[in-house]
Amino acid sequence: MDNFNFYSPTEFVFGKDRENEAGELIKKYGGTKALVHFGGNSAKKSGLLDRVTASLASAGVEYVLLGGVKPNPRDTLVYEGIEICRKENIDFIISVGGGSVIDSAKAIAAGAVYEGDFWDFYSGKAAIEKALPVATVLTIAAAGSEGSGDSVVTQEKTGLKRGAGSSALRPRFSIMNPVLTFTLPPFQTACGAADIMAHVFERYFTNTLEVEITDRLCEAVLATMVKEAPRVIADPCNYEARANIMWAGTVAHTNICGVGRSQDWNSHNIEHELSGLYDVAHGAGLAVIMPAWMEYVMPHNPMRFAQMANRVFGCHMNFERPEETAINGIRAFRRFLKDLGLPINFEELGAKEEDIPVLVKNFGIGEGRTGGFVALSAEDIANIYKIAANAKL
Amino acid sequence: MDNFNFYSPTEFVFGKDRENEAGELIKKYGGTKALVHFGGNSAKKSGLLDRVTASLASAGVEYVLLGGVKPNPRDTLVYEGIEICRKENIDFIISVGGGSVIDSAKAIAAGAVYEGDFWDFYSGKAAIEKALPVATVLTIAAAGSEGSGDSVVTQEKTGLKRGAGSSALRPRFSIMNPVLTFTLPPFQTACGAADIMAHVFERYFTNTLEVEITDRLCEAVLATMVKEAPRVIADPCNYEARANIMWAGTVAHTNICGVGRSQDWNSHNIEHELSGLYDVAHGAGLAVIMPAWMEYVMPHNPMRFAQMANRVFGCHMNFERPEETAINGIRAFRRFLKDLGLPINFEELGAKEEDIPVLVKNFGIGEGRTGGFVALSAEDIANIYKIAANAKL
Repeated sequence: MDNFNFYSPTEFVFGKDRENEAGELIKKYGGTKALVHFGGNSAKKSGLLDRVTASLASAGVEYVLLGGVKPNPRDTLVYEGIEICRKENIDFIISVGGGSVIDSAKAIAAGAVYEGDFWDFYSGKAAIEKALPVATVLTIAAAGSEGSGDSVVTQEKTGLKRGAGSSALRPRFSIMNPVLTFTLPPFQTACGAADIMAHVFERYFTNTLEVEITDRLCEAVLATMVKEAPRVIADPCNYEARANIMWAGTVAHTNICGVGRSQDWNSHNIEHELSGLYDVAHGAGLAVIMPAWMEYVMPHNPMRFAQMANRVFGCHMNFERPEETAINGIRAFRRFLKDLGLPINFEELGAKEEDIPVLVKNFGIGEGRTGGFVALSAEDIANIYKIAANAKL
Repeated sequence: MDNFNFYSPTEFVFGKDRENEAGELIKKYGGTKALVHFGGNSAKKSGLLDRVTASLASAGVEYVLLGGVKPNPRDTLVYEGIEICRKENIDFIISVGGGSVIDSAKAIAAGAVYEGDFWDFYSGKAAIEKALPVATVLTIAAAGSEGSGDSVVTQEKTGLKRGAGSSALRPRFSIMNPVLTFTLPPFQTACGAADIMAHVFERYFTNTLEVEITDRLCEAVLATMVKEAPRVIADPCNYEARANIMWAGTVAHTNICGVGRSQDWNSHNIEHELSGLYDVAHGAGLAVIMPAWMEYVMPHNPMRFAQMANRVFGCHMNFERPEETAINGIRAFRRFLKDLGLPINFEELGAKEEDIPVLVKNFGIGEGRTGGFVALSAEDIANIYKIAANAKL
């Protein structure tokens, strides 16, 4: 096990009707005037936004509204949010929505107290050292941003999708009411499930030996998803299944599933170019990329894939030929994703094989290599896109 | 799943040599003058106390030493610590030791800023609302107190062992260097393993349905202990096994294994009377009580015990007669404890069957019932002591 720090100071406020506590919680964490950040009309139509603002009002917390966050949140709205925070003396940001809204809120929080251009954080020019306090009212189980210090934003003029992270961005509190996810359409629900599982897989495939506790915690989240995701697709208003998935999504990404070990993250990076070029849902892109990446890198450590296949998908463990068990596990994962209604190749996703050179160029590693489990070259990445383009059950 | 709040704001600083960061960490969390609280001579002899105080000195943090904490920490030393904190204007408490030292430090932290008698918190007369900030340098993997808001103290004149809890008691940081546990004797190592597993079992046996994610997280910790505890008994300086156990002990007790569900805690309460009367190690008492409690309450929900038997101890699942699988799992657990070198009945523990009426009287529930999984009467508790008294493999 490698040395590590684990710090997850967010207060998770989980269960039915908890959004009505938003105002009191902001007050408890020192906020007096909040930016309420949200996405499209669903938060308005459902009455959720009204309930949250009513809670703020009754706690005596002033607020300014800023909606309009799109999936793959844009820098343009972040600049607008920063302006509002400065002009209105905002001292707290609460996001009402899914990962994109939270990520946009985090970018605003960091940018509002920074003299330079907030994109400096996302282009790697500067590190985030402070931020306005952020909180969330989560409506989609997927990104894990409600419990993480990470944020991903897309630069509108270039299409570049880049991430930044800091413990200063970890939400003070996150309100998680599974009922709010009942109305999420099946496709988006499935995309969320793929994203949650990918967050675990990126941490599971490691070169660090002897990390039984973290392996087992990873497998706990994955096995939960294997059980609960099909249930929720079949029965969208099943509170228990929604609740298990929502909490699994948080556990998947606080980094308790990744401490003390090398992590990979190539599947996320390879997918980011897909959602950057085609504006497809991140989870759908992951469903196409992740099994392809697994097939390509499996020979690096067949036993690790075999362990996953055995413990998560219940595949028979062939100790003499673990690569067989590994392949069965990867197949089981792809079938599982397909059964959830997700795409498994470029055609189903709406991507084109002939664009692979563009995707690889946008990835932009040149002659370098990247990835904590297997260090991949541009050629390797092109090969993974090719596997993904033509994947079948 | 029940509504819940989960809040674990401790920064865990894990790995080799991390105790040398104690001073900088105290400064980061606002401390200027610390009480360094410890137990017996081992912290001095090993040089650990010197390393910690050198780290404080080099960070410019003043300190006062207070040693002498015994297992099952006493109120008398807590009163002494409170006096020192007030007289010396201490603004931070760092414990160097295991669960007893941490629990004593937490009691001092709460008492130092309270006008009344700190025992009010432990006798249930008052709730802890504030405390001096506490941190830990952990030397024993067992109690989980390094990541919890709980504390247990024994009143010397009565022998009463009572607990108190508050998020104000959650450590600001906990330094966890597995190397510090290398010198722990096998028996104490085994007692720690039993305590860690008991913390999970108390949460695992629940009447809340449909908590797959929490079940799986519990099983992750238990399976890790089943693998790693025998390794560390056989090879006490195995860093990887010590590291897995140390982190498992924290995960077992932050309450991530217990959120959203009813919990039991009768085994702990039943054991407390044993260590109160005989001053035996808490983990040794748990090794005697926990399987006895399991046998007695198993008929309440055989399938839950069968699930544990199957997923943790690999017992064959008999869906038609889950009670058979359950019994096999409880037997496997008792054999596991015995193989670690722990007592499994009263004689091996140093307790006497004829004292059972005294133990039940000290338990003090009168005509009431207690326990979140199965509500037990005084008669039930006597029956469990009887099973424990005469248990065999």
